[in-house]
Amino acid sequence: MKNISSYTTVREIYEAIAGNNNEMDGKLVVIDGWIRTNRNMGNIGFLSFNDGTCFKCAQLVYDNDTINFEQAIKAKLGQAVTITGVVSLTPGQKQPYEIKLKEFVLVGDVDDTYPLQKKKTGFEFLRTIPHIRPRANTFNALYRVRSVLSFAIHEFFQGEGFVYVQTPILTSNDCEGAGQAFKVCTEDKKPETDYFGKPVSLTVSGQLHAEPFALTFRDVYTFGPTFRAEKSSTTRHASEFWMVEPEIAFATIYDDIDLMEDFIKNIVKYVLVNCKDEMQFFNDRIEPGLLDKLNRMVTESYEIVSYDEAIEILTEAVKKGHKFEYNEIKWGMDLQSEHERYIVEKVFNCPVFLINFPKDIKAFYMKQNDDGRTVAGVDLLVPGVGEICGGSEREADLDKLKQRIKELGMDEKTYEWYLDTRRFGGCPHAGFGLGLDRLLMFITGITNIRDVLLYPRTYKEILY
Amino acid sequence: MKNISSYTTVREIYEAIAGNNNEMDGKLVVIDGWIRTNRNMGNIGFLSFNDGTCFKCAQLVYDNDTINFEQAIKAKLGQAVTITGVVSLTPGQKQPYEIKLKEFVLVGDVDDTYPLQKKKTGFEFLRTIPHIRPRANTFNALYRVRSVLSFAIHEFFQGEGFVYVQTPILTSNDCEGAGQAFKVCTEDKKPETDYFGKPVSLTVSGQLHAEPFALTFRDVYTFGPTFRAEKSSTTRHASEFWMVEPEIAFATIYDDIDLMEDFIKNIVKYVLVNCKDEMQFFNDRIEPGLLDKLNRMVTESYEIVSYDEAIEILTEAVKKGHKFEYNEIKWGMDLQSEHERYIVEKVFNCPVFLINFPKDIKAFYMKQNDDGRTVAGVDLLVPGVGEICGGSEREADLDKLKQRIKELGMDEKTYEWYLDTRRFGGCPHAGFGLGLDRLLMFITGITNIRDVLLYPRTYKEILY
Repeated sequence: MKNISSYTTVREIYEAIAGNNNEMDGKLVVIDGWIRTNRNMGNIGFLSFNDGTCFKCAQLVYDNDTINFEQAIKAKLGQAVTITGVVSLTPGQKQPYEIKLKEFVLVGDVDDTYPLQKKKTGFEFLRTIPHIRPRANTFNALYRVRSVLSFAIHEFFQGEGFVYVQTPILTSNDCEGAGQAFKVCTEDKKPETDYFGKPVSLTVSGQLHAEPFALTFRDVYTFGPTFRAEKSSTTRHASEFWMVEPEIAFATIYDDIDLMEDFIKNIVKYVLVNCKDEMQFFNDRIEPGLLDKLNRMVTESYEIVSYDEAIEILTEAVKKGHKFEYNEIKWGMDLQSEHERYIVEKVFNCPVFLINFPKDIKAFYMKQNDDGRTVAGVDLLVPGVGEICGGSEREADLDKLKQRIKELGMDEKTYEWYLDTRRFGGCPHAGFGLGLDRLLMFITGITNIRDVLLYPRTYKEILY
Repeated sequence: MKNISSYTTVREIYEAIAGNNNEMDGKLVVIDGWIRTNRNMGNIGFLSFNDGTCFKCAQLVYDNDTINFEQAIKAKLGQAVTITGVVSLTPGQKQPYEIKLKEFVLVGDVDDTYPLQKKKTGFEFLRTIPHIRPRANTFNALYRVRSVLSFAIHEFFQGEGFVYVQTPILTSNDCEGAGQAFKVCTEDKKPETDYFGKPVSLTVSGQLHAEPFALTFRDVYTFGPTFRAEKSSTTRHASEFWMVEPEIAFATIYDDIDLMEDFIKNIVKYVLVNCKDEMQFFNDRIEPGLLDKLNRMVTESYEIVSYDEAIEILTEAVKKGHKFEYNEIKWGMDLQSEHERYIVEKVFNCPVFLINFPKDIKAFYMKQNDDGRTVAGVDLLVPGVGEICGGSEREADLDKLKQRIKELGMDEKTYEWYLDTRRFGGCPHAGFGLGLDRLLMFITGITNIRDVLLYPRTYKEILY
């Protein structure tokens, strides 16, 4: 019977050696894992071996003293094996250690149809085998970073005293418009006679369901899957993606901004510290300069720029001869990615909080500013990508909120429960939403959302 | 502008005083929160005040030196307020401190329709206002424990080196039978011409999608929402619930058992340590003896009992005159809750791992034992509840697995991708599933799943 906490792993050996623990030298170990490569030199050979516990492989050396030498010679990519061997430190070499094999035991073979072969395989091909691609370096690194980043999110919020609220996926309400929501049913009947007895869809945001909990626990966050049935195929849209949505009570847009900056810096730092090998790989192979970009995210101050100022800046730029694809800059427009990137990359050269948007381009729940034309919304724009997350102070005034619901032709009755948060001990509160998948793209330099999701679901595309 | 990390909270004051930090005495604090009760004695009055940061309230004392004394006199349940006051230690009193109010500022009023009134309100009524009930003591405690328990799950697995895999909610595959799955669509068209171009449903388990990741990262876990469209209304079934499903490679059923025990003990201990006030409340108000029950879960050894032994025990019990509702004990039957509880409570009086079930009552993917009639499945049974989680070693043999799929009349083609995990470097592996909501019921003594979920979704019942 294996004891989970004491079996030897490739990671343990690396960590012991990095910690100058020389006890590892000469230690007999038993490790399970998978073969990556085999260089057979005749009477001696070298296996690259990954046991899933870290990004790096261990080098195994076999010779004709190795039990099952004949199997080791034939070892091939993808085989599951259990090895017994002696750790040998190799100071000055590329790897800090190798393992001299006493025994090689084949546990699970691969047949000739194994789709991952040594030759490089493109991301597009790998998307057709989402259940195999985590074994490829890039995806191995991606999914470990995804896991560590997800944990960083929980650790940050729990450390700050936030309560994790698991808002529902199934909803008979709808945050940002039914057109983008998937419907749910059990039979091909009318909703009225189906399972729930009314129309039900998949959530497009947990915010409305989270707000009442912020008005109880003060600081809360959601973190879970979210859905949009957008009929578009881009590299940045998925039908199912993960969102984190903090909501804080007794807070203004400026508290929201402070939280966003603090949050982003903390979780990016956490990944840089805890996924060193993976991040080095992305820096070397995927996006040159990635580590510099992220280190700046973590250390430098972010700017706050109002929408009004942004329009002035863009107007000035056009006057001076800058050409945007969409060149008609006027107040009230929704800024395009090119505009956001101009502001971030050409003007401020640092992350920018863009705030106070025209109310007509933003959601009904955003706090209406005293100027009567803008709302207290905020988008965080970062170099190279543009918008990475957005939020707002919420309209706390019941009458103003009802008025806005009426203006937009929404069904007030559906929102009665939500309006209760303004009737019963309401207070200024704020929040934001951040897409885990897009953040992961930013952190790793991967440019297609289909690659950061484990099993991507997009328009017309779903496997298994 | 509020600084998130430095504002004073009710929790901070309690913690400082518990840590014998006398600096709190005489300190001027500003705190936002909500009124629970108001005892006005004329020239002086006492408010019970909760700021959401901890279960306990703070006692506020106002008198006619308090700015807005007239408002404080009229303070009522549910109002949002910002108070300024001086902390005063009260050794020997019920509360270790009170706050003498300098100023009382009403931020958000409540109107007369506020549904939470001082008189006790039953759980059934509170289910009709899921957005308000977190303000009631029981639910306040429940949802904080839910958050802490969820974090304990992440912390346990991440600490053990597991990779968090966010398996998809939308699936064109199906783990345990399409009859229980919700369908997903965008229009009332045939699936072939709808959004994904094929039938898609909501996941009933992440296991099949997680297994390929265990065969890459060795140890992985899912943690997310899961769906069952069962048309039954019980106190233990919800249509949407949260599951955690670890999957470990190079592992047998006994490794699975070790992990289960280690996992349960760790997360229960975490809640006992980090939610002391809430757990004391549940022990005092909901389930007498709860803390004893949980402390035993954490400290005592669990038994392993085979299904064969269980049948012998039950047969013997019937012979000796014990009456079960379902009294015809025979090999091959699915044990009922009464049988499980007899074994756990009357025979062993400790948690029991029941293992090696008849293959015909278990899922296709469970490892077939050499006896030809049982599979290496395991259920963890606990006193007072019965089954709390279940798992198995997985069938690693491709041919046996295919044979089982054929026997059960399942569509092998749909599972080709899953079978790849046995073709390409497969190995013994195992896992289990644990329902967060049922575990939370066990931990808090709450007996209806509708109360542990934030916004419960059950047959014919969905709000917002």
